[in-house]
Amino acid sequence: MNNIIVLTVPTVGLLGLLFSLYLARSTLKSDPGPPEITTISRAIQVGATTFMRREYRVMGLAALIFAAFLALVLNVYVALTFFIGVLCATLSGFIGMSIATRANGRVTFAARSGLSKALHVAFSGGAVMGMAVVSLGALGVSGVYLLFDLLPFTPDPLAVITGYSMGASFVAIFIRIGGGIFTKAADMGADLVGKVEVGIPEDDPRNAAVIADLVGDNVGDVAGLGSDLNQSYTDTIVTSLIIGATAQSAGGLYLGEKGIIFPLLLVAMGSVASALGVLIVKTLAQKDVIRPEALLRVGLLTSGVISLLGILLLSRFYLGDMGPFYAATSGLVVGVLIGLNTEYYTYKKPLRSIVVSSEAGAANNIIAGLAVGLESTVLSMVLLGLGLVVAHHFAGLYGIALSGLGMLSILGINLSLDAYGPIADNAGGIAQMSGQPSKTRDITDRLDAVGNTTAAIGKSFAASATAAAALSLLTAYSEAGHIVHLDIREPRVMAGLLIGGVLPALFSAMVIKSVGRTAQLMVLEVRRQFRELAGLLEGKV
Amino acid sequence: MNNIIVLTVPTVGLLGLLFSLYLARSTLKSDPGPPEITTISRAIQVGATTFMRREYRVMGLAALIFAAFLALVLNVYVALTFFIGVLCATLSGFIGMSIATRANGRVTFAARSGLSKALHVAFSGGAVMGMAVVSLGALGVSGVYLLFDLLPFTPDPLAVITGYSMGASFVAIFIRIGGGIFTKAADMGADLVGKVEVGIPEDDPRNAAVIADLVGDNVGDVAGLGSDLNQSYTDTIVTSLIIGATAQSAGGLYLGEKGIIFPLLLVAMGSVASALGVLIVKTLAQKDVIRPEALLRVGLLTSGVISLLGILLLSRFYLGDMGPFYAATSGLVVGVLIGLNTEYYTYKKPLRSIVVSSEAGAANNIIAGLAVGLESTVLSMVLLGLGLVVAHHFAGLYGIALSGLGMLSILGINLSLDAYGPIADNAGGIAQMSGQPSKTRDITDRLDAVGNTTAAIGKSFAASATAAAALSLLTAYSEAGHIVHLDIREPRVMAGLLIGGVLPALFSAMVIKSVGRTAQLMVLEVRRQFRELAGLLEGKV
Repeated sequence: MNNIIVLTVPTVGLLGLLFSLYLARSTLKSDPGPPEITTISRAIQVGATTFMRREYRVMGLAALIFAAFLALVLNVYVALTFFIGVLCATLSGFIGMSIATRANGRVTFAARSGLSKALHVAFSGGAVMGMAVVSLGALGVSGVYLLFDLLPFTPDPLAVITGYSMGASFVAIFIRIGGGIFTKAADMGADLVGKVEVGIPEDDPRNAAVIADLVGDNVGDVAGLGSDLNQSYTDTIVTSLIIGATAQSAGGLYLGEKGIIFPLLLVAMGSVASALGVLIVKTLAQKDVIRPEALLRVGLLTSGVISLLGILLLSRFYLGDMGPFYAATSGLVVGVLIGLNTEYYTYKKPLRSIVVSSEAGAANNIIAGLAVGLESTVLSMVLLGLGLVVAHHFAGLYGIALSGLGMLSILGINLSLDAYGPIADNAGGIAQMSGQPSKTRDITDRLDAVGNTTAAIGKSFAASATAAAALSLLTAYSEAGHIVHLDIREPRVMAGLLIGGVLPALFSAMVIKSVGRTAQLMVLEVRRQFRELAGLLEGKV
Repeated sequence: MNNIIVLTVPTVGLLGLLFSLYLARSTLKSDPGPPEITTISRAIQVGATTFMRREYRVMGLAALIFAAFLALVLNVYVALTFFIGVLCATLSGFIGMSIATRANGRVTFAARSGLSKALHVAFSGGAVMGMAVVSLGALGVSGVYLLFDLLPFTPDPLAVITGYSMGASFVAIFIRIGGGIFTKAADMGADLVGKVEVGIPEDDPRNAAVIADLVGDNVGDVAGLGSDLNQSYTDTIVTSLIIGATAQSAGGLYLGEKGIIFPLLLVAMGSVASALGVLIVKTLAQKDVIRPEALLRVGLLTSGVISLLGILLLSRFYLGDMGPFYAATSGLVVGVLIGLNTEYYTYKKPLRSIVVSSEAGAANNIIAGLAVGLESTVLSMVLLGLGLVVAHHFAGLYGIALSGLGMLSILGINLSLDAYGPIADNAGGIAQMSGQPSKTRDITDRLDAVGNTTAAIGKSFAASATAAAALSLLTAYSEAGHIVHLDIREPRVMAGLLIGGVLPALFSAMVIKSVGRTAQLMVLEVRRQFRELAGLLEGKV
């Protein structure tokens, strides 16, 4: 009986993948446009694929070594689930990026026929990524669980499923950091030489770094962000299962195997909620009835409400206990509020205050932007803290994991909005480079502006999801390790907090250094091109 | 018998104040120089005094209200010790700044006769502040302790002495933040209008914001930093007393009243160690035998070694237990190492790597500087964590407080080096504005460069001292409140950590915003002057 219920989860995962395929087809059906657009789009595609292929080669080798290590130190089953985790993570990122790099030029061309058509193509392209990540996540985790539960002579699924989330983390480290450095270095290099040194506009075709910048949007903000959120998603699911195995609800009820199956059902339900949100946006986008900013918000809120209902029904009728409902809802509400907070800071009054400050020069712009950026983080943290207390109050340690899962239940629609951002950005770049009429460029600029906000929301959501995943991991780890004491006055705990607190500074320093170095190499290369290729600056080459 | 031993502490405090007076006289004996120097120095003096007087007026009023609140909610004795704390903190800052604003022009004039004479004046001027803070600290805390211990019908000294450290914190909030905003806004305003808009050099007399910038160095980096470190110093002493009252050494020995007196003796001993370090630097500076950078380091290390010996003797012969020696030494060693780490980052290879990066433009400079800055924090945190574990291992919770006290035992010499920085900076500014010959300006620039490094060391020391004080406070508070559980998996503890972790972002945002706003007002005023005062730019007014 239990396994039949569990079987719904991979089924939903498969259906989600089919939906993702349908979205991809719908995107590719759109007209790629005339050669001046397809050439540039093609160049971005080739650049992104080349970069990813190199990254995959290095990552694949490292993954093999790590899998061998796991097989030796732990066992061959963990190594196997690790490999499945790597595969699912890689696949979802690659699918998302392949469609994104094909959608960009199509959006540019669609913008010629108006805003709603362009929005529809851009959003459909982004949703491929969103649905691929959540569907492969649902399919992968539940598949591994069922495999080890059904096969004889294999260990308990919960003993080996951590390998799956290790695989997701492994991919995230490579793709997120590698892609992040690429995109920022290309962005900086393009602006430094183009805007500052030579004085040509952004996205000018004469600047070789511009294509690299557009490639960077895809490998960093599509594949990178996707792998990042896939990691948080997978970690949260897996830790929920582990904590669920021993979970006591707030009322003292022992949940038994239902404690493991409930998170899996939540995942499946979240995929459905996201898919419905995506469908609403896709349908309304073609109708041209509301402004793009509002439309994307409608999608997010629709998925949120459906997910809320789903959690309610599952808690009430499957578990028969409402504690988990409150816990998961607290996470969902916190996730939505954090998104709205980011939207406020990147779109409303605070943004205008930066514009006003910038009138007194670049230094004031940096100062004002830094202040607003710092301020924007405060409410998110307070909300996270509150959500944590509420979740724990209603369902104990299990509640903390469920709260993370509640937040991530609408990952599908969230990630769709995120991936929409770089597609719109690319479309704007292509419009500029292919010399589209100003009416078309106005539309792509408009979409790009909306995309900047959704991208910012995506980053804040990713950060919150990471925090939720880290909290679940901490709980699961100390449960599994039977750690009784973690008092912050304990000097080793405090020393750990201090050192842990400074690690982001170390990693940031390392990443910033590579961005600086890479940008410098890029500047030198573009300078060389301007110097050696006669007629380049005059636009003749 | 015990009270007689304690009496040595205020005695050392008084002697230290006399030493501070001697240093002040020695600074003022130096020739103030010709009118073109004294006019500027006088303007800085007037500016700094005016600003501080206004700040004191607001602060005094707020302190009265807060004291009344303390008297109502707690008792009149706490209100009294609070007021003594405010008084001592205000006094030490004011003494230090008064001498610093009188030393600046004298350093410029002394630079005409050579490097060693100028270094001597600048360092003596800075040491006034260093010795005033530690002497008034020793005098104030031990005075309050003895007063309540000897007077009949008054509460236990440890029950009211927290008022004293509240007073110190109260002053620090006003003077540090107010001064900090002033100095950075003036610095920014001066650079924005002068260097960027009008294109005149730094410290040009035609730019009205330049005097404000020099005033800012005094109110922010002398009075502000002094009040900041006074707070950390006082907090650490007071919490050591409180924890000491119930301290068990690692060997299980109950220390009794010795546990309270030992920290007071450490403070007195530290003042002596700092005074000897100051004397060494002052004497060697006149002899012109070693480079300024090396000389200042010799002073720091001398004080460190003397302090180490002092801790050893006090532990061995007064306490008869070596646990506290190891604990205090761990803090002292960590403090010195953090200072050396900062020196390395602000003076050696990492600095040159920023210079190299800057060749590719301003953006690369920011990126490289940010990366190096982030990286520089890592080792400090690791050292703090290690020191904590060592201190706790040897003397338990008492050891954590003693470790902070060990670090702060050389505060006198450290603060002397810090206050030297802005004096040298001011001297450079005055040399530029009064049109000194380039040989003189080379000397003041050299002193200024050394001062930038010592100022950076001072800031890292201040940050470490704050961390040490915060750890002591946490320990003392949870001891006093009989808090048994502070498990980080406890959701309220974790929520507290999250919210606490984001508070610096909130405060930074608020402070940065005021700096931006103030700088903008300053830019408008200087622009107005350049526009309305005919002939200003030509240097005729």
